[in-house]
Amino acid sequence: MFKYNSPKLTAVRLQDGFLAPRQRTNAKVTIPAAVQQCRETGRIDAFLLQWRPGMPRKPHIFWDSDFAKVLEGMALQLLVTSDASLAAALDEYVDLVISAQQPDGYLNTYFTQVEPEKRWQKLFCNHELYCAGHLMEAAVAHFQATGQRKFLDCLCRYADYIGTVFGPGPGQKKGYPGHEEIELALCKLYDTTGEKRYLDLAEFFVRERGQEPNYFHVEEGVAADHLPAMQAHRPVAEQHTAEGHAVRAVYLYSAMADLAARTGDQVLLARCEEIWSNITEKRMYLTGGIGSTPIGERFTLDYHLPQDGYAESCAAMGLVFFTRRMLNLTGKRQYADVLEQILYNGALSGISLAGDRFFYVNRLESGSDTWERGDTFAKDRRPWFSCSCCPTSFCRFMPQLATFCWSWAEQELRLEIPAAGQATFCNCQVEVQSQYPYDGTIRVIFHGQEQFTFSCRIPGWCPRFAVALNGKYQYQNTILQENGYLSWNRLWQDGEVLEITLDMPVAFVRADWRVSACRGAVAIRRGPLVYAVEGLDNAADPGALVLDLKSPWQPEPVPGLPEGTLGLRGQGWQECLPQDRGLYFIDSPQWEPASILAVPYALWQNRGDTRMSVWLRSGNECCPDQAGRDRFI
Amino acid sequence: MFKYNSPKLTAVRLQDGFLAPRQRTNAKVTIPAAVQQCRETGRIDAFLLQWRPGMPRKPHIFWDSDFAKVLEGMALQLLVTSDASLAAALDEYVDLVISAQQPDGYLNTYFTQVEPEKRWQKLFCNHELYCAGHLMEAAVAHFQATGQRKFLDCLCRYADYIGTVFGPGPGQKKGYPGHEEIELALCKLYDTTGEKRYLDLAEFFVRERGQEPNYFHVEEGVAADHLPAMQAHRPVAEQHTAEGHAVRAVYLYSAMADLAARTGDQVLLARCEEIWSNITEKRMYLTGGIGSTPIGERFTLDYHLPQDGYAESCAAMGLVFFTRRMLNLTGKRQYADVLEQILYNGALSGISLAGDRFFYVNRLESGSDTWERGDTFAKDRRPWFSCSCCPTSFCRFMPQLATFCWSWAEQELRLEIPAAGQATFCNCQVEVQSQYPYDGTIRVIFHGQEQFTFSCRIPGWCPRFAVALNGKYQYQNTILQENGYLSWNRLWQDGEVLEITLDMPVAFVRADWRVSACRGAVAIRRGPLVYAVEGLDNAADPGALVLDLKSPWQPEPVPGLPEGTLGLRGQGWQECLPQDRGLYFIDSPQWEPASILAVPYALWQNRGDTRMSVWLRSGNECCPDQAGRDRFI
Repeated sequence: MFKYNSPKLTAVRLQDGFLAPRQRTNAKVTIPAAVQQCRETGRIDAFLLQWRPGMPRKPHIFWDSDFAKVLEGMALQLLVTSDASLAAALDEYVDLVISAQQPDGYLNTYFTQVEPEKRWQKLFCNHELYCAGHLMEAAVAHFQATGQRKFLDCLCRYADYIGTVFGPGPGQKKGYPGHEEIELALCKLYDTTGEKRYLDLAEFFVRERGQEPNYFHVEEGVAADHLPAMQAHRPVAEQHTAEGHAVRAVYLYSAMADLAARTGDQVLLARCEEIWSNITEKRMYLTGGIGSTPIGERFTLDYHLPQDGYAESCAAMGLVFFTRRMLNLTGKRQYADVLEQILYNGALSGISLAGDRFFYVNRLESGSDTWERGDTFAKDRRPWFSCSCCPTSFCRFMPQLATFCWSWAEQELRLEIPAAGQATFCNCQVEVQSQYPYDGTIRVIFHGQEQFTFSCRIPGWCPRFAVALNGKYQYQNTILQENGYLSWNRLWQDGEVLEITLDMPVAFVRADWRVSACRGAVAIRRGPLVYAVEGLDNAADPGALVLDLKSPWQPEPVPGLPEGTLGLRGQGWQECLPQDRGLYFIDSPQWEPASILAVPYALWQNRGDTRMSVWLRSGNECCPDQAGRDRFI
Repeated sequence: MFKYNSPKLTAVRLQDGFLAPRQRTNAKVTIPAAVQQCRETGRIDAFLLQWRPGMPRKPHIFWDSDFAKVLEGMALQLLVTSDASLAAALDEYVDLVISAQQPDGYLNTYFTQVEPEKRWQKLFCNHELYCAGHLMEAAVAHFQATGQRKFLDCLCRYADYIGTVFGPGPGQKKGYPGHEEIELALCKLYDTTGEKRYLDLAEFFVRERGQEPNYFHVEEGVAADHLPAMQAHRPVAEQHTAEGHAVRAVYLYSAMADLAARTGDQVLLARCEEIWSNITEKRMYLTGGIGSTPIGERFTLDYHLPQDGYAESCAAMGLVFFTRRMLNLTGKRQYADVLEQILYNGALSGISLAGDRFFYVNRLESGSDTWERGDTFAKDRRPWFSCSCCPTSFCRFMPQLATFCWSWAEQELRLEIPAAGQATFCNCQVEVQSQYPYDGTIRVIFHGQEQFTFSCRIPGWCPRFAVALNGKYQYQNTILQENGYLSWNRLWQDGEVLEITLDMPVAFVRADWRVSACRGAVAIRRGPLVYAVEGLDNAADPGALVLDLKSPWQPEPVPGLPEGTLGLRGQGWQECLPQDRGLYFIDSPQWEPASILAVPYALWQNRGDTRMSVWLRSGNECCPDQAGRDRFI
């Protein structure tokens, strides 16, 4: 079982300057824009079931998932910011979706209208169960937000019908989705309804995956070397590394964690731990992005992390979901560290500050040699994509931000990420005041009286910290060394204050040399934020810059970014481009001094077209010349 | 018109230790192995026209081209090393190919047997004209080698038939090939037969390309954004950069150069010069490889040259063909410099020393993070590929090696690459003695008496040189500064000796910082050879190594590589991998001293599986720290 739970959305609230404005923008801009796009492209009208061959706006196999994610986002957002017009619109759309359900419970606009004869015939590539899963998640969110059962009941009928088609019984299909999602959705349906048959069906889909005879092989004749792309190359209990399409993979791993928590299966838990370690120790960008190649949007090999890789926005959000589950299962700090790393960098980088433009791909460098292919692989954020999974993922991700900051147990409240905000725990309201992630001074104020354990994570990036309870300094390193958290079990009194100071120095991060793309380079990090150098703040293209690590690097405000945003300024050099030097040359490079400003990676490309680098050359310390000579020669 | 010509194969001969053995291996190993593969896979039997639906070894649209290239290789090899059994086998295969010609002149095993109804229906993707072109090249080579007209006549009939199908006349198709090749082949057919209609047809194919209405767009409905892949996005006279599939591109540019030479068209010449500069100044690997991505095997953007890019073997050979034509057209040294660069590095890297294994892709680094996908993108050379263009390209490329070393004009003989060998020019036999490319001391001995200009290229990589005529030192810098060649117009006497000494220091090459993959790294070059560091010669993975550029770097023999091969040994450091350090870290790297051996890139991966890097970090000079501080702070 889970050691911790995610808090309910209604129990927590953000009041910080980094995350909270993005939530408000989600309600004001992102969701309305997504609804508008769904309307214009036909994704909404598809549920009218009026499309006929030859008509425009022919439904696509993944359209239902897009609109479902918008509906889920609307419902979750209602739990954050109540809004009558949003509620009314959601109600109307829910009725529309329900109206598209077939008498047998089936609910899919593409296979009802376009290729009815192909229902359940192409699990490998047709996203049918994937769409069903997103509708289930939307229905669960709708029930949580409104208390109404109509959408939930509709999806239970669909799930029950799916349970007749798929399963271990005679005449049932032994298949499972090409794009995972329904497995974790069925776990949510089980949690919400208490009906064990949904958990059983989730478990069937997860455990059947990769069994022999391989369903995809039989169905499609797909050769074995394509099956890792679908995580179906072997049973999940025998999978030890993260393989294939990154989004699908982390959705599957999330479901495996869900099952491990609900069934107590230690093998599944061990596989989740192994795979998560494989991802975070060998296959994840510094920003938390995953998926190294556009070819199949997939994981590739350990240490293969090219700057112009993929790191799809949806995959970063999916890794947050998987990591959150692992944090709940184990309570280990490493999961919170990585969750924070993704959240503040490679996840939020996918959406513009204005909330209306999105990266599909979150590269770590965008420069003169950045190969742009279509809007998916664009240098700048775009309002929509033909495959628009990423924008709709943000609709449902943003309302959940506050839940990532806290963990809940019977008698323990844990502050995972000290963003300003509050949590209501039993009879106590716990308020967090901070300028996090730009400042490490955190004040936690307790309102009300209650006996419980309050724990606070000391982030892995933090080299030193200090803690004062009601003005009295204390250190509890014993507890910290055990699990990375400070804990106080006491009867909290109204007005008590805990002050935590996290030292937040500028750090220069290096990568294992096996990551060839980062060799000889450093990245700038302060607190949880990875920094990027944008062309528009600097005299030279970021690729020409070399950092002087020995110069003082200081926070400073950044013009054009939200108030409170801190960039980092330091010194370095820029490499000159002598005329007629050619592509390759043997002369020593020529340098000029340069003042360098870096901005949070998550906020790059919000002030117009520019070039950007996360990994930059370092003008000292990275080279063994002096140190090496002194030491060895 | 061409200022220079390539020499006839029978007029030149190699006797060096680097290239000549590869030619002998071509006759002994590569061609027989390719014939065997063609036989086993059905590429030869396809010409029996006995395939019927349901039978195995169904012909493929590009099979004819593979076998045609082997036949061309056999014919060219006969001109280098006469061999009765090779001649007999060639004769038999030529008869077989001729027997497959249809009454109307058509000659294509796939569209005769498998999809006869699709003849000329899918120019965009069906390789039909491409196969025809390779058969024409084979027929021309066969005529040159044997003096027999039967194969040449057969292909003339085919060309004549193609000339009825395609052309500007009423009822004729205004199409052109999706994969260029026939254009340059028709120029060869024109040169061989003197029939101008073949030149006209070549010109039609070249000039019609990209005209509106776009043929591919009409034929396939292919959107405009796919057409750069086929160099059909606009008319060739309006193309200024190298775009799309790299092999197709350089075959087209070769034909454009052929046309410019034969028609005197200055616009085509200017386009060729521009595109060649775009390739070599912005889109070419240091090894001469081209094509930066497996997605479409294509050119991408200026400075986009990832280490794990593509650099297909066929594309390197194709760039040699294009560059050779540009050298002939202009006589400019830059073309010979690049031709040499490709030849000694990225072209010969594609074939094993034993001659029986091939790289399809010539990456510049193969290491822990090298993503291997199928045999095309393998870490090691393979005997054959399902698309086996590269092995068969080597069959026809290797016999031509000597021709790249010399240029011919009416009254001038030019030594472009001073590999040991000889050339017969008028009544004079010119002998070159050298250990090139490992040593820069060149002796040119004249046998016989003749008045002509003898010119010798001073390579662009050479910083200093000395020349002695009959033991008397002389420098002719005026002439050299003009065009990069030393020239003597005189009545050469039997036994005269010209001694040219090219200084061949170890050089550390850097790349323009806009090539992000090479930033902060250096490559080792000596003479025309680019060096690579292989794991098996060194204590550490090449990726962990850092070069000490200030240490003495000295040539030394390499165990396991052919006698005479010189590696380069120098000092440096290796980065340690502390246990549990993690993927990203903030501690300073730890170094140990390392002795480093580098080997010629063209010869890597000939001694077993290993890791390899061309670009390595440099422990000094690349960083502005000291220099920068001294100068500016």
